[in-house]
Amino acid sequence: MAQEIRVGILGFGIVGCGTYQVLVDNAEQIARVVGAPVRVARVADVDWTRERPVDLPADLRSTDGLALCSAPDVDVVVETIGGIKPAREFVIAAVEAGKSVVTSNKELMAKYGTEILEAAARQGVDVQFEGAAGGAIPIVRALKESLAACRIDEVLGIVNGTTNYILTRMTEEGLAFADVLAQAQALGYAEQDPTADVDGIDAANKLAILGAVAFGGRVPVEAIYREGIRDISPVDLTYARRVGKVVKLLAIGKRAGERVEVRVHPAMLPQAHPLASVNGVFNAIFVKGPECDEVMLYGRGAGSLPTGAAVAGDVADCARNIVAGARGRIPCRCEGEAQVVPMAEIESSLYVRTQVLDRPGVMGAMATEFGREQVSIGAVIQESTDGKVAEIVWILHSAPEGHLQKALEKIKGLEVVVEVSSVIRVLE
Amino acid sequence: MAQEIRVGILGFGIVGCGTYQVLVDNAEQIARVVGAPVRVARVADVDWTRERPVDLPADLRSTDGLALCSAPDVDVVVETIGGIKPAREFVIAAVEAGKSVVTSNKELMAKYGTEILEAAARQGVDVQFEGAAGGAIPIVRALKESLAACRIDEVLGIVNGTTNYILTRMTEEGLAFADVLAQAQALGYAEQDPTADVDGIDAANKLAILGAVAFGGRVPVEAIYREGIRDISPVDLTYARRVGKVVKLLAIGKRAGERVEVRVHPAMLPQAHPLASVNGVFNAIFVKGPECDEVMLYGRGAGSLPTGAAVAGDVADCARNIVAGARGRIPCRCEGEAQVVPMAEIESSLYVRTQVLDRPGVMGAMATEFGREQVSIGAVIQESTDGKVAEIVWILHSAPEGHLQKALEKIKGLEVVVEVSSVIRVLE
Repeated sequence: MAQEIRVGILGFGIVGCGTYQVLVDNAEQIARVVGAPVRVARVADVDWTRERPVDLPADLRSTDGLALCSAPDVDVVVETIGGIKPAREFVIAAVEAGKSVVTSNKELMAKYGTEILEAAARQGVDVQFEGAAGGAIPIVRALKESLAACRIDEVLGIVNGTTNYILTRMTEEGLAFADVLAQAQALGYAEQDPTADVDGIDAANKLAILGAVAFGGRVPVEAIYREGIRDISPVDLTYARRVGKVVKLLAIGKRAGERVEVRVHPAMLPQAHPLASVNGVFNAIFVKGPECDEVMLYGRGAGSLPTGAAVAGDVADCARNIVAGARGRIPCRCEGEAQVVPMAEIESSLYVRTQVLDRPGVMGAMATEFGREQVSIGAVIQESTDGKVAEIVWILHSAPEGHLQKALEKIKGLEVVVEVSSVIRVLE
Repeated sequence: MAQEIRVGILGFGIVGCGTYQVLVDNAEQIARVVGAPVRVARVADVDWTRERPVDLPADLRSTDGLALCSAPDVDVVVETIGGIKPAREFVIAAVEAGKSVVTSNKELMAKYGTEILEAAARQGVDVQFEGAAGGAIPIVRALKESLAACRIDEVLGIVNGTTNYILTRMTEEGLAFADVLAQAQALGYAEQDPTADVDGIDAANKLAILGAVAFGGRVPVEAIYREGIRDISPVDLTYARRVGKVVKLLAIGKRAGERVEVRVHPAMLPQAHPLASVNGVFNAIFVKGPECDEVMLYGRGAGSLPTGAAVAGDVADCARNIVAGARGRIPCRCEGEAQVVPMAEIESSLYVRTQVLDRPGVMGAMATEFGREQVSIGAVIQESTDGKVAEIVWILHSAPEGHLQKALEKIKGLEVVVEVSSVIRVLE
């Protein structure tokens, strides 16, 4: 057996504790598969007064993260602090000190992945981030290694457990968004400030990472179009079921010639799509290409042990590279920045639910406006009416977003249209 | 860029052609991610008269597989011949000649994996076999690397596309096994001799590979209990639906203390189980453990390009190891042979469909026999009867297989029991 590999953990919160637990509980197995013992040598956190689910020997604790990053008794630095400050500074310091780094920090990798990976390439060390894109789902390694020889044309992900939990309960129980959110907050499935989840920010960070790995070009997170799930109503989910679909918050990356489409928004998926039966807090990432065809990876996208397991798997890989003298074996291979297709150029099919005055000629007036923008109608559902206001649902065939949005503006302007209640993109 | 990596392909059939096509079509991408060009230098096959979907330059062709294995202008040998002879001899020869090897040959790895991997360890070369266990599904790398730090307690796989296609059509269309098989043969989805697929032999080979990788102990393929799908009737699939289940041919591996359970048989799965919605020729492997929780990988388990993509991914990984000077970076880490639990000791829950004489006291007589073997009854369905023979379906609670089989023998011996028409294990 080779000499032991020493791990330093930055941040002893949910993921840090999970990582520590996996490394300690499975130390024997990890030593066997790595070919060297892997031991946690140091843990740094600013607050040691909090209650934690694991028992950490006092002599491993410190409050000086920066010192850990260059400590001579640390070979692999694990960053589970989250956020940008001080995680970015620490990770760069660790890389500059010649340490391999494992991070579960999606915001950091989405925003500063280039800086970090370029520094790693200069230093010839590993920076691994499996836990940052899909928790326990082994998607990063699948894309970088198993599917390395394939062309990937499409990545569709349910990459946020909170929103998938909310949509699943809304679908199954007919509950309103606000009610499920409140319950999810009470259960600890949603943050008190749910913005990052329900507005798709978390999903966009993960898409930036997945898009770069899948398409080989860096995806600026600010270029990702983003819509959350706050406006989804249970009525929409019922209509979706009637047309054989389910609504999911999707992170979508697609090749479009030399450019890429990257966007996060709710979408109606066919019930037979592999992603359609991914429910509750589970996540899944669906990948498509001409050679591998359809591949989907499913699992827990968050949580102490699942994310800890992904981080510990990356630690094992960094350790193997140290044992084999092969640090930096798989550097970042992105070729500059991906060109992102502007949203107005993307082709979408839309579900549009409208409230209109219950008068003759209304449907004709609306259909005419759609036609003027070259938008053709796939289906129309009109049912209940209270005699004054009727609900009409339109399914619009695929057309450029620019045309669709213009058509919707005109529809909203019609005197007979009370409101456009919701608009959801439809995937075939 | 490093010096080019030269590939020799043994066998230019379905997978060999697919591998060649992926390596040629995506040569630019592969060179970028590997950091060195990867070029097919030689292809050996015994028959060059067959029509093939790809155009192979004449100067790459040869008929001497053994010569390819030790050719000085080959760095990585790809074996896609299938079967044992001459694949085993060739692979050993390539390893002994110091080549890294990639194989998609499940029978070879299931039966001679130990011999091959031990030779590879001695020579310090890579032997990779992602395409042998699940086609394009990146399960081997997930288990060996991404989930390397996790304990895996359970592997459930739909690992045979032919049987999944047959069961899916039987379920959806109420067709009989023989009719769907005949159609599948006509469409080329099933072999003219379907034994390896429908009797679970192919699935058992894959389970031997997956079990070894998941549990860290070699699984002798002959120790795997095996039952195929020939006896499944559409009636059983209808009953399954009534009790909220679907029938799939599963490859099951489970830790049981220090031992493992390994078996291939049809099973009724809850409709909400992630594997339940895997339909048609698609495969999926579901993994469970205390840290990663539930992880499922889904995709095409066979086919020229999907398996070729997996093989080419392994070639890229071997090439990366050569570039990094890290061949043999992840050797086999199995600790001897796994102890397999005898089938009689396994706990199962059973669905049992019986035909009985339509007389008073029959159900009591049967229930009494079950009780005598400590088998308790979860549910009973009796409906139609022609006045002479009644069909009774029993769902038996979990009990040791030994007891269950003894109870079934006794039931069959009852004068009032015309036949036990089918027995299918039920998973919760």
